[in-house]
Amino acid sequence: MGDETTILQAVEEKARAAKIAARRLATIGTATKNAALAAMADALGKHTAMILHANERDLALAADKGVPPHMRDRLALNEKRIAGMQEALHQLIALPDPVGTVLSGWRRPNGLQINKVRVPLGVIGIIYESRPNVTVDAASLCLKAGNAVVLRGGSEAIHSNIALTQVIAAAAEEAGILSGSISLIENTDRAAVRHLMTLNPYLDCLIPRGGASLIETVVKNATIPVIETGTGNCHIYLHAEADKEMARAIVLNAKCQRPSVCNAAETLLVDATLAESVLPGLLPELVEAGVELRGCETTRRIAPNLPILPATEEDFFTEFNDLILAVKVVDSLEEAISHINHYGTRHSEAIVTEDYHAAQQFLDEVDAAAVYVNASTRFTDGYEFGFGAEIGISNQKLHARGPMGLEELTTIKYMVRGSGQVR
Amino acid sequence: MGDETTILQAVEEKARAAKIAARRLATIGTATKNAALAAMADALGKHTAMILHANERDLALAADKGVPPHMRDRLALNEKRIAGMQEALHQLIALPDPVGTVLSGWRRPNGLQINKVRVPLGVIGIIYESRPNVTVDAASLCLKAGNAVVLRGGSEAIHSNIALTQVIAAAAEEAGILSGSISLIENTDRAAVRHLMTLNPYLDCLIPRGGASLIETVVKNATIPVIETGTGNCHIYLHAEADKEMARAIVLNAKCQRPSVCNAAETLLVDATLAESVLPGLLPELVEAGVELRGCETTRRIAPNLPILPATEEDFFTEFNDLILAVKVVDSLEEAISHINHYGTRHSEAIVTEDYHAAQQFLDEVDAAAVYVNASTRFTDGYEFGFGAEIGISNQKLHARGPMGLEELTTIKYMVRGSGQVR
Repeated sequence: MGDETTILQAVEEKARAAKIAARRLATIGTATKNAALAAMADALGKHTAMILHANERDLALAADKGVPPHMRDRLALNEKRIAGMQEALHQLIALPDPVGTVLSGWRRPNGLQINKVRVPLGVIGIIYESRPNVTVDAASLCLKAGNAVVLRGGSEAIHSNIALTQVIAAAAEEAGILSGSISLIENTDRAAVRHLMTLNPYLDCLIPRGGASLIETVVKNATIPVIETGTGNCHIYLHAEADKEMARAIVLNAKCQRPSVCNAAETLLVDATLAESVLPGLLPELVEAGVELRGCETTRRIAPNLPILPATEEDFFTEFNDLILAVKVVDSLEEAISHINHYGTRHSEAIVTEDYHAAQQFLDEVDAAAVYVNASTRFTDGYEFGFGAEIGISNQKLHARGPMGLEELTTIKYMVRGSGQVR
Repeated sequence: MGDETTILQAVEEKARAAKIAARRLATIGTATKNAALAAMADALGKHTAMILHANERDLALAADKGVPPHMRDRLALNEKRIAGMQEALHQLIALPDPVGTVLSGWRRPNGLQINKVRVPLGVIGIIYESRPNVTVDAASLCLKAGNAVVLRGGSEAIHSNIALTQVIAAAAEEAGILSGSISLIENTDRAAVRHLMTLNPYLDCLIPRGGASLIETVVKNATIPVIETGTGNCHIYLHAEADKEMARAIVLNAKCQRPSVCNAAETLLVDATLAESVLPGLLPELVEAGVELRGCETTRRIAPNLPILPATEEDFFTEFNDLILAVKVVDSLEEAISHINHYGTRHSEAIVTEDYHAAQQFLDEVDAAAVYVNASTRFTDGYEFGFGAEIGISNQKLHARGPMGLEELTTIKYMVRGSGQVR
């Protein structure tokens, strides 16, 4: 791993180069950025064999270490997955460039013309886990929004990430993007990433992508502003006036369609007046779909023949990311809202109801990035929202909240034109 | 100061109460908030004697400690300053409520209606220094934008801050605002403020207002997202094609009109082709206005008879906040931009020029919250920008950049209305 001073110097060197590159990137035209994205897609095709070879090394090391198969699957690349990266690059080319948009502009009584203009953030650090596709995805989104990026992927994907970064950075450079615009911290030592998180003179923001513990580590240790992403302890609340068939479809979808993702539901709240008529039909369907249930006392009483574990306080706080669902019967809309605001992670929350006032109260009082009436929480996603791309889903309140597309990778600058004004 | 556990518990208690209050504040109507602001203004008038009495205690303690007169002036309250607070409250009542604005809204092909709606941030922590007027100012802005606030002022103003907070919090409560919406950490121990900075479950953001060292302490120690404010190492660049009379007026204004504030200029950059014709007239005027000059070699050579200290590397990095100006002769627009991007704090930067291309390049390439052509940097201010209020000036890039008004004290929520949509 080399001695610590050398490691830190290498990290700092990449951050410094990124800052220099970012100045150029901020004023580069859309055509050049798109040409670089196209070149990156081409290069991924041309160097597929080399990339897959590097990925095999990671996979072999993972197998040696006894990493379980489903984790190795997240790490694995193949021709189809590389084609997917190329496809995403072409979709990104088609998206509008957010840089230069005048968000608002006005004339002051003294004649000053103030324009609020979208500009790139500068240098973005992305700290992520095992999926190597994040490397290309994050680098290309940052580039399209005019930012330099410093990547730091998981150690288990290091050979894949090095190969991917080499390929796309070289392609971008040939297309006219300054060297240093896309770089990877190749050292997997923890000291390297800790150092990266405190390089305030060079980085403008950090985006961690991964599990709760990665995000917590970054929030605790970073001095650079962080955009928190991801943790989703989402709820579906079946209100007293819910349409039962709609309720059934939404619960099954939100829990089972893709349980490993952040916008999947983790807890089902059911109004007491509805519990007896809905749960006896719905719970067996969930069990049949492979869902492990953890219920409150009332839930277990209503379905005594189902294998329902008693739900603990801890369960209600947990993002299972798996086919597990906590179930709680609540006495009122207010209790449902209080439960969600107490146990939730402010990500995505849904009510199923036919009642206008209940819908409105839920929308107003639930504190979350996305609040749904009569729809699955699974729609909280940059593509489903129509952004055409997504760097992550923020569940903090500053800067960006909810799905983050290209616009969320920019900041603003006030451009003020005068004719000699003084105070 | 009491034992540490008790201190921390007291801080946490206020933060918890603020969080509960924030839920209510988020859905309260504009009329109620405005009534509370009016009641606060009335109460300040009614309790002026009590507030001034508390302020006298702070002033007496400051005198005992040998605090210099200009610092004691910042601390001092009088009837005129309290009338100023009342006036500011009435101006705030007249401003539009940002909460509930639909920033954008669209229908997806699947029929989902997605609305992006402005909502309050929640609980805001304000950490500030000696001026007690910040207490009323910050609390009222947070309230108008629907947020609860936890205040932590400087120890030298503690009696004034306690009196002011008691008066306005009681008035707000009588007008229907939940208790806990406005609170002050009364313990001046450092442990209290350190603890406040890490109460992520209760606070949504921290805004430090004060000098560079206060801000650095907050950025380094906070785990709650911070909006950095203030530090302004601002430049005026006189381009080769500058109008000389305009240049003179802008430099004098930006340096001398109010040197202690963040948008005052700290360094003058002069194009080499202009130096010989401009500096011999301008520098004596600055000296006459009481400005201490620190110049580069060329500057000192051009004005050998003026008392100009040699400018150090450190000088170019310094926000003097005083009648001191660093002066440097540069060879090109590019050198000026590089200097600013290297030494500046990304706050407010100005070019004086008659040249279209130079103006455009400066606007595009200088990395700052506000970039000016032919105007003084002193306009970076919520009132001068027309926001009608200001909680501070952000010189970070996330969430808010430049003057922050009521809108910057809000976040967004996606309200999604469906009819049973699933993925």
